[in-house]
Amino acid sequence: MAEDSVPDQSRPQMYLFGCALKSDKKEFKVEVEDDDADHQLSLKAVCLGADAEDTFHTVEIEGVTYDGKTTKIPLAVLKPSVLPSMSLGGFEITPPVTFRLQSGCGPVYISGQHFVSVKDSEDEE
Amino acid sequence: MAEDSVPDQSRPQMYLFGCALKSDKKEFKVEVEDDDADHQLSLKAVCLGADAEDTFHTVEIEGVTYDGKTTKIPLAVLKPSVLPSMSLGGFEITPPVTFRLQSGCGPVYISGQHFVSVKDSEDEE
Amino acid sequence: MAEDSVPDQSRPQMYLFGCALKSDKKEFKVEVEDDDADHQLSLKAVCLGADAEDTFHTVEIEGVTYDGKTTKIPLAVLKPSVLPSMSLGGFEITPPVTFRLQSGCGPVYISGQHFVSVKDSEDEE
Amino acid sequence: MAEDSVPDQSRPQMYLFGCALKSDKKEFKVEVEDDDADHQLSLKAVCLGADAEDTFHTVEIEGVTYDGKTTKIPLAVLKPSVLPSMSLGGFEITPPVTFRLQSGCGPVYISGQHFVSVKDSEDEE
Amino acid sequence: MAEDSVPDQSRPQMYLFGCALKSDKKEFKVEVEDDDADHQLSLKAVCLGADAEDTFHTVEIEGVTYDGKTTKIPLAVLKPSVLPSMSLGGFEITPPVTFRLQSGCGPVYISGQHFVSVKDSEDEE
Repeated sequence: MAEDSVPDQSRPQMYLFGCALKSDKKEFKVEVEDDDADHQLSLKAVCLGADAEDTFHTVEIEGVTYDGKTTKIPLAVLKPSVLPSMSLGGFEITPPVTFRLQSGCGPVYISGQHFVSVKDSEDEE
Repeated sequence: MAEDSVPDQSRPQMYLFGCALKSDKKEFKVEVEDDDADHQLSLKAVCLGADAEDTFHTVEIEGVTYDGKTTKIPLAVLKPSVLPSMSLGGFEITPPVTFRLQSGCGPVYISGQHFVSVKDSEDEE
Repeated sequence: MAEDSVPDQSRPQMYLFGCALKSDKKEFKVEVEDDDADHQLSLKAVCLGADAEDTFHTVEIEGVTYDGKTTKIPLAVLKPSVLPSMSLGGFEITPPVTFRLQSGCGPVYISGQHFVSVKDSEDEE
Repeated sequence: MAEDSVPDQSRPQMYLFGCALKSDKKEFKVEVEDDDADHQLSLKAVCLGADAEDTFHTVEIEGVTYDGKTTKIPLAVLKPSVLPSMSLGGFEITPPVTFRLQSGCGPVYISGQHFVSVKDSEDEE
Repeated sequence: MAEDSVPDQSRPQMYLFGCALKSDKKEFKVEVEDDDADHQLSLKAVCLGADAEDTFHTVEIEGVTYDGKTTKIPLAVLKPSVLPSMSLGGFEITPPVTFRLQSGCGPVYISGQHFVSVKDSEDEE
C-alpha cells in the first residue's frame, strides 16, 4: 500500500502563531505569498507584557471585508491594572492581515494557531 | 482537469467584519440583500476606544427571534475602568441585524468574521 | 430539478435568542411545545443593565439532568463594578429550561442563538 | 417505515450538568458506571455564590492523564471582588472525574452540558 | 460480530492535561515521542494559586511556527488582585511544546485536554 507512506495533505497542518507589538515595532504583517498552500490564523489570546505601562493598549486588526475593502478595527483594549490578558476564543482570519498597536507602548502579545493546507489542485484525482 | 480551475463555491468564504458605534453614529445595520449568496456573521470581540468616557457602554443587538418577531437585547456592557474588552466567543447571527450603542458615548468596536456562501441552486447538479 | 425549490429542512435554522430578568419578572421560561421541530439554545453572553445596582446578580438555570431530575444551578454572578458582562462561550441547552434571577434586582440580559430543526420523520426516505 | 419509530441512538443526548461545592461538601464526584452508554461532560462556567466570602476560591479537577495517572489540577480561582464568574469555554472531560474546592468556603457552582451516547455495540449492523 | 470487540482506534482518546509552574520549576515540557500515536493538547484554562504573590505572572509558550522556527510567545498575564484566572477557549497545540513562567513566582496552573490518536498506518486497509 503506497497510501501510508504519503502524508495526508488534505488535512491542514497546525503550527503556533505569535507576534509582539511594541513602541518601536507597532505593526506586524502576516503576508503569506504561497501559491501551493492556503494559510489561516486562529487568534486565541492577547496579553500585555508584565512591564507594560498602566495605560490603555489598543490592538487593531487590518484586513479585508466581504465587499473587498480594507478595514481597520480595534480587537481588544487592555490595561495592566484592569484587564492584562484576554482570550479571543478563536478569531479566524485569512492573511494578508496586519496587527497594529494603535494606542499604548506595549509590549502586547498575540498568540494563536496557524493552519496551512496544501491546495488540492491534483490530490482529488 | 477542469476541476481545479473552478473554485469551490460550496465552501463559505470568510472575511473580516468590523463596525464602530459612537455618539454621532449609534447604529450599524447589516443588511445584505443578496439573492445569490447566504451571509452570516460570527461576532468575536467587543471593545471600547482607549478614549471612551468612564461610564457603562451598552451594546444592543436587534434581530429576529424564531417566532418571527424583532427583538432587541443587550449583548455586552463595558466600562473602561472595569471591563474595557470582552470576547464574544463566536456569536453567530444571520443578517439583517442592527448593532446599537444603547448607553454611553463610545466609541465601541465590534469585530468578527463574515461568511459568504454562494447559494447552491445549481451546484449539486 | 425539483431539488432547488425545496428548502433544506435538515439543516437547523438559526435565530436570535434574548431574554431579560428583573425584579418584577425574575423568571423566563423557554417551553417549546412543538411536535414538528427540535429546538436548542446556545447561550452566548450575559450582561447587566447599565442602571443595575452595584450588588451581586446571580443568574440561575433550571433544566433536566441526565438522570431525569430537574436541577437549578447558578450560571453567572455579575456585579457592575467588578464584572458587568460575561461571555458564556456557547452554553447549549435543550428546552424546557428556565432562567431565573436568584439574587439582585437586575436587569440582567441573556443572549444567544436559537436553533430550530424540522424533525426528520420522513425526509430520509 | 420502521425507521422513524426508532430514535437515533448514535447521536448523543444532551442534558444539563451542575454541581455545588461548599465548606461542608467540598467534593463532587462524577462516576458513571454505565455499561451501555458513554458519558462526557462539557464544563461551561464556574461562579461563586452571591454570599461567598471575599477570599480566593480554588476549584480543582481530578482526572486521568494520558499515561494513566490520576492528576489534580486547579481549574479556576475566583474571588467575589475580583472575578466572581468565569466561562470555561467548553472544557470536555470524561468521567470518572472529581471537582474539589481546594481553597475558600464557597459556595462555588460548576455548570455545563452532559452528553450520553448509547454504545454502538450492535447498531452498525 | 468481531466489530464490537475492537475499539475504534481512529477516534482520538481524550485525557486530562494539567501542569504547574512555580519558582523552583518554571518550565514544563510536553515531549511525546510516540511513533504509534498522534498527540494534541487543547489548553482550556490558566489560573494562579490562591497563595500567589500579588504581582504579574506571565505564562509563555514555546513551540514551532509554520516556517519551522521555534518561537516563544506570552500566552497570558495574570495577577491575583486583577485577573486570577483566564479561560483559553481551547488553544490547540501539537507537542513538542514548553510552558514557562516568564515573570512572577507562581504557582500558575494550566489545564486542558490531551488527545491521543493511534496513527492510521494500517487501519484503513
